[in-house]
Amino acid sequence: MVYPETFTGFMADGADSWPPKFIKREFTPKPFEDYDVDVEIEACGICGSDIHTLTGGWGPKNWPLCCGHEIVGKAVRVGPKVTLIKKGSRVGIGAQIYSCLDCKQCKNDNETYCRHQIDTYGAIWPNTGIVSQGGYASHIRGHEHWVFPIPEAIPTAEAAPMLCAGLTSFSPLIRNGAGPGKKVGIVGLGGIGHFGALFSHALGAETWVISRSHSKEADARKLGAHGFIATEDKDWNEPHRMTFDLIVNTANSSEGFDLGKYLSLLDVHGKWVSVGLPEGEGQEVKSHMFMENGCFIGASHLGSRKETLAMLKLAADHGIKPMVETVDISETGLASAVSRLRKNDVKYRFTLTGFNKVF
Amino acid sequence: MVYPETFTGFMADGADSWPPKFIKREFTPKPFEDYDVDVEIEACGICGSDIHTLTGGWGPKNWPLCCGHEIVGKAVRVGPKVTLIKKGSRVGIGAQIYSCLDCKQCKNDNETYCRHQIDTYGAIWPNTGIVSQGGYASHIRGHEHWVFPIPEAIPTAEAAPMLCAGLTSFSPLIRNGAGPGKKVGIVGLGGIGHFGALFSHALGAETWVISRSHSKEADARKLGAHGFIATEDKDWNEPHRMTFDLIVNTANSSEGFDLGKYLSLLDVHGKWVSVGLPEGEGQEVKSHMFMENGCFIGASHLGSRKETLAMLKLAADHGIKPMVETVDISETGLASAVSRLRKNDVKYRFTLTGFNKVF
Repeated sequence: MVYPETFTGFMADGADSWPPKFIKREFTPKPFEDYDVDVEIEACGICGSDIHTLTGGWGPKNWPLCCGHEIVGKAVRVGPKVTLIKKGSRVGIGAQIYSCLDCKQCKNDNETYCRHQIDTYGAIWPNTGIVSQGGYASHIRGHEHWVFPIPEAIPTAEAAPMLCAGLTSFSPLIRNGAGPGKKVGIVGLGGIGHFGALFSHALGAETWVISRSHSKEADARKLGAHGFIATEDKDWNEPHRMTFDLIVNTANSSEGFDLGKYLSLLDVHGKWVSVGLPEGEGQEVKSHMFMENGCFIGASHLGSRKETLAMLKLAADHGIKPMVETVDISETGLASAVSRLRKNDVKYRFTLTGFNKVF
Repeated sequence: MVYPETFTGFMADGADSWPPKFIKREFTPKPFEDYDVDVEIEACGICGSDIHTLTGGWGPKNWPLCCGHEIVGKAVRVGPKVTLIKKGSRVGIGAQIYSCLDCKQCKNDNETYCRHQIDTYGAIWPNTGIVSQGGYASHIRGHEHWVFPIPEAIPTAEAAPMLCAGLTSFSPLIRNGAGPGKKVGIVGLGGIGHFGALFSHALGAETWVISRSHSKEADARKLGAHGFIATEDKDWNEPHRMTFDLIVNTANSSEGFDLGKYLSLLDVHGKWVSVGLPEGEGQEVKSHMFMENGCFIGASHLGSRKETLAMLKLAADHGIKPMVETVDISETGLASAVSRLRKNDVKYRFTLTGFNKVF
């Protein structure tokens, strides 16, 4: 069989205009190696990271660039040493495409913190100069460790956004004990937050969504939230002081955030874990904000292969239904979807579909 | 037997002058209750908290005030319900003098985070209006839960500073797994930091002291540090990236601190625990500072009764020798010692002694 030597994708040439102009172009993937899998893409979620990249908010990138790192498709080619993935099977790829699998971090299911990690798009493949390209494309090539079998029970368009947004919320929940007897807060109800509510509920934790206004309260409850807190309410933190074990902060902006009030919600040594990378200024912290309850703040980056498989199993077993709006991939479809996402005008994730019509 | 109804202490009237004028005055302690213990004071450490209080750096206080919360003396009176302390025994009192013992926090050895806690000095005893007064005094009265038997092996002047400085470093070490196979950093070699190095070493952790210059390197090694890092050195963090499990930050100032560099030392989900409450501005943090290793920053407040007893046992069993300079308590002795401490001119803790000469 002859495999394609180039792939095709909707690429942006820079961050100078908004919405970005997406141009269909051929690109050369990294050389195919023994552990690699080629995936013919059927669906791709649109992640907040794509927006930060396309606006230039995260700084200079390797243009032209094909974004997209919530990918589901068919494994059309597998390398001779691949054991984890069967040719022809439905698989997913998320926001990371490579790690060394040899360092202390990789050997401890912390491959997402591997110092040799490669992002699914926009990174340089070592020794080649080739830029990694994402899922607004016909195909993607990646190491089998970062390619995941998708359980039959999960529809393609719903599986796609789990691979970044889902995993990003799932990993800090799992790593910090979300489960029965725990009270968990999810700050921000966007793409990641809505998965956070779904998974926290499915894991058995008492789940509260914390949002600026009450506008998303009904949705939060549909997603499984036991309670809802709107920070526009006066003294919103008072009834909940020192009652939360864990808060996963999915907010994409720290503007107007009174972090001290959020931290007052945490029980002793409770954790505030941020999973977003807001653009712009940071926040001022002082020791006394942490002293009343000995709480911690930190961040979490994606999740391990093991966690990805556990998440997909949980989603399949519990019949978890994310709220996904599908959009056919095209120049205009992409431009419209990223514009709407930038304005948070989606409940709660876009998945690009219709790949077979354009590639 | 007739017990004194008032105690005598060296009190300051405000934070208007430096060094503060210490005036010997009588004061009325809280009413004696069934679980209370009166301690005739023999020694009291001088803590950084005393300086922050006396300079006004921590804001307005209830003057006149008798500072001091690293107290060792003799239990001269015990309430009828006291079971933990024997009359006549040598005991200590640290920085907390009361907690409700009834809340979730108290019931989980987190009484130091009890919302009804009372500081050893400067707090108001409920229903009395009486200000709690510290250990620059003849006596102190406290609930037995906050009075600790001192093991025979520890000299009085060395036990005293363990009760705040020691415990403040010991609790975060214990709570965050310091022990064999762990690499622990102690930032700042002052009163608390020097105990941190002693205890971390005694607990079996690979212990590194992190200081601005090399000036304290020899002392650090005497205290048991396996390694020493001076942040004045170029690229000081590079050789140690992602190798520390825990860093206890005892620095009393955040001036010129490049927090991101310190955090780069932490392994995946490693913790940076601050135990000081620096005056002045806080620090700006951004999610990306935590994202590379998924690290956490937080703070720790003192420690539980259980931890105090464990610390004293560790110190006795290992023959831990803190570096303590004794000063006879008097108006001038106090003024000189607090002035020197404010300039960090002590290695590494002052303990006031000679109480029987002035009270």
